[in-house]
Amino acid sequence: MNYSIIRYVVGWVLKFEAGFLCLPALVGLFYLEQDSLFYLLTAAACLAGGFFLTLKKPVNRMLYPREGFIIVALSWIVLSLFGAIPFVLTGDIPSYIDALFETISGFTTTGASILTNVEALSYTNLFWRSFTHWIGGMGVFVFILAITPLLGGSTMTLMKAESPGPSVDKLVPRLKDTSKILYMIYIALTLVEALLLLCFGMSPFDAFCTSFGTTGTGGFGIKNDSMAGYAPAIQNIVTIFMILSGINYSVYFLLLRRKLKQALCFEELWWYLGFIAATGGIIFFNIRHLFSTSGEVLRHTFFQIGSIITTTGFATTDFNLWPQLSKNCLILLMFIGACAGSTGGGIKVSRILILLKSIKKELTSIAHPQVVTKVRLNGHSVAHEVVRSTNVFMTVYLIILFISVLLVSIEGYDFTTGFTAVVAALNNIGPGLELVGPTGNFAFFSVFSKLILMLDMLAGRLELIPMLVLLTPSCWKKH
Amino acid sequence: MNYSIIRYVVGWVLKFEAGFLCLPALVGLFYLEQDSLFYLLTAAACLAGGFFLTLKKPVNRMLYPREGFIIVALSWIVLSLFGAIPFVLTGDIPSYIDALFETISGFTTTGASILTNVEALSYTNLFWRSFTHWIGGMGVFVFILAITPLLGGSTMTLMKAESPGPSVDKLVPRLKDTSKILYMIYIALTLVEALLLLCFGMSPFDAFCTSFGTTGTGGFGIKNDSMAGYAPAIQNIVTIFMILSGINYSVYFLLLRRKLKQALCFEELWWYLGFIAATGGIIFFNIRHLFSTSGEVLRHTFFQIGSIITTTGFATTDFNLWPQLSKNCLILLMFIGACAGSTGGGIKVSRILILLKSIKKELTSIAHPQVVTKVRLNGHSVAHEVVRSTNVFMTVYLIILFISVLLVSIEGYDFTTGFTAVVAALNNIGPGLELVGPTGNFAFFSVFSKLILMLDMLAGRLELIPMLVLLTPSCWKKH
Repeated sequence: MNYSIIRYVVGWVLKFEAGFLCLPALVGLFYLEQDSLFYLLTAAACLAGGFFLTLKKPVNRMLYPREGFIIVALSWIVLSLFGAIPFVLTGDIPSYIDALFETISGFTTTGASILTNVEALSYTNLFWRSFTHWIGGMGVFVFILAITPLLGGSTMTLMKAESPGPSVDKLVPRLKDTSKILYMIYIALTLVEALLLLCFGMSPFDAFCTSFGTTGTGGFGIKNDSMAGYAPAIQNIVTIFMILSGINYSVYFLLLRRKLKQALCFEELWWYLGFIAATGGIIFFNIRHLFSTSGEVLRHTFFQIGSIITTTGFATTDFNLWPQLSKNCLILLMFIGACAGSTGGGIKVSRILILLKSIKKELTSIAHPQVVTKVRLNGHSVAHEVVRSTNVFMTVYLIILFISVLLVSIEGYDFTTGFTAVVAALNNIGPGLELVGPTGNFAFFSVFSKLILMLDMLAGRLELIPMLVLLTPSCWKKH
Repeated sequence: MNYSIIRYVVGWVLKFEAGFLCLPALVGLFYLEQDSLFYLLTAAACLAGGFFLTLKKPVNRMLYPREGFIIVALSWIVLSLFGAIPFVLTGDIPSYIDALFETISGFTTTGASILTNVEALSYTNLFWRSFTHWIGGMGVFVFILAITPLLGGSTMTLMKAESPGPSVDKLVPRLKDTSKILYMIYIALTLVEALLLLCFGMSPFDAFCTSFGTTGTGGFGIKNDSMAGYAPAIQNIVTIFMILSGINYSVYFLLLRRKLKQALCFEELWWYLGFIAATGGIIFFNIRHLFSTSGEVLRHTFFQIGSIITTTGFATTDFNLWPQLSKNCLILLMFIGACAGSTGGGIKVSRILILLKSIKKELTSIAHPQVVTKVRLNGHSVAHEVVRSTNVFMTVYLIILFISVLLVSIEGYDFTTGFTAVVAALNNIGPGLELVGPTGNFAFFSVFSKLILMLDMLAGRLELIPMLVLLTPSCWKKH
């Protein structure tokens, strides 16, 4: 194990976090809030820690997968540990565990909150809360790699460990350029949404916070009723941008390169839209009696579907009161999640496709034993390696899900609450059903349950393996 | 597709069913019930159908996997379609759909009932109901192959398609001998339990019906309160035999051959007992306030655990009233299920082990990229083929689970009821939680939901792939 490289990279992450923390400090300054000061203090602490850790450069700069996984998992934990401090210092979230829960929920773009009154927060804190979504959405390392060469060659491992989906699409040969392109698309989406929201009457503060939560597929609301209080037009804009944010960024890249035909051949995109349309149809008919006009039914249906499949977690209505069929459709979408290579969470559409195609392959080999078939996705054949790791992912996913549901149930809340709380955390969604439904929150859980859910959020965002490697002692041993 | 062989084997299955139906007819004769007549009538119909279908022998006697899967799936359906007739003719279950549900639940050893008052049934019907468990437990084809050579060589396919677990252990070189040994162990277990129950004061009728339900891991009770009314000693005997019935029969075979050391090295056995002990410890502490003495707590804890992990489904107490942690432990055991090569259902301990070891292999390859490891189980290395089919099994399992939960929820019952009803059907357990808990039943579901649950029971008993092949049109095409 190359300990020095772990220390070095985590140090760099801290330095970047110092930079991130300056943004809410500026916002605080603008609103003349003294909270700004605490953000600067935390930034200083991050900077000091970062400098200390990066003082000595690592001799061996090679990154093997296990170091990569450990670095990414550890960095996200360190990022959250420091990111939570301002909430406590400003007094808005007095308990550090609660602040940590909120921060991890932010960075992992979950959006599950322990706050019972969001509107009581200062502008500074509200901004930081939403901004963590934006940082976590595309990924810290994607950002760092877009800006600095860091370690030179072997940084693909970091990108692999942090990026969602069964495999990473290198859009262009150089990793740095790929990261840059991804962030440019990300920034463009964020700005366009914010501008549109401004045009439809949102305040600049609300517009940017909402936009961070949408494009990062986070879901922290800045109002107690999430998005329910905003005008229908604003809700529709958010619906569209949530769905856009759940699309594989490779599609946007192909569109930018004017490869329209290739972009339209992207299988994952059509399945993703197909899931939205199919569940949309079911829910529309299932809840049509709950609202007075069809337009209203349509708006709420697709807002909630967009919010859940992209694992954002905003809400315009309390879907916990919907009929069971609609609720089960939403639970199904919670598991499916967004496209790989997007900012969304969940199992990912492409993994579902790989699994479905594996079944088809098996059935074909039973029906026609002499035919040799391969699993193909988006026009390329899927490497055996990827199929295997998808299966391992699913197994680890199910084990974490089961153990977490068991551990959270020690508190004794009903099955639906416990189950959907874990599902919402592990898939980085935010709200679940019953007590953790859209009008509820996660405040009532014990510290123990909160710790389990925090681990679930991190495991979900980093797609399980990095956290698993981090927690496996034998992976820490020297060769 | 070799249609004639399908016709021929299904015909043979019908002939055997005629034989099976004579047993309840005899019981009816003994109790002087006229129901006996209806069983003889149905037997005659089966015999006639069987003779008609087997009139012409198939020219090509080769069985390929797809024919094997289709034969097994179709046979179980035909078996149930005919087996349900007497319930309707005797008037005890007037609706044919309900009778079919009860029969499929019997043959698949599920034990989920649509009856609200079991005790109103005639002895003849009660006996047939429990006897279907016994037939389905070890398997119809295992029985047929033990008695007749049927097709000569290529019958391993049928055994593979019907036997539970990721792969079939051929105990001895000849398949016929393997089937015979399995049935001899099965009969021995059944008789020993029945004798013990008789010694502790059960009536002969109750003793045999209970023993059929135990060793077949079925779970149909012949009393309205399942096993709650019986003496503690009787409950304890049932507990022991449920747990014994969930053990891989290979272990018994090794013991018979006095290979004690090899039997004790059987990894799956220890994990199975480990799951029982671990959840036993948790539930014991979690429910100790519900009963007056520790002995009582212990008895109910292990009865319910034995009943659920072996997917039997008997109950001595209403575990739906237990704390959520205990209920979740039971839900976990519902999924795990019994050992492969036993009469129990569920995912099976050996599949869980193969999946766990695949994760370990992945982690090892991350920690030590230069080390090549293999998945090993019960002292043998597991073929890549088996690992792959285990993964396909898991995917199909999850898809069927999700789609079924969605379809059953159209009726609008709460999540826990719908979810555990499907879990209980798919894993061949019987009772679930809430409305389908141990004191409830499946009578209230609509015909549509009952059909879904019937398909789940069949899919679960035959381990998914045969049913999937049966329902895949391309598998029916001629080469």
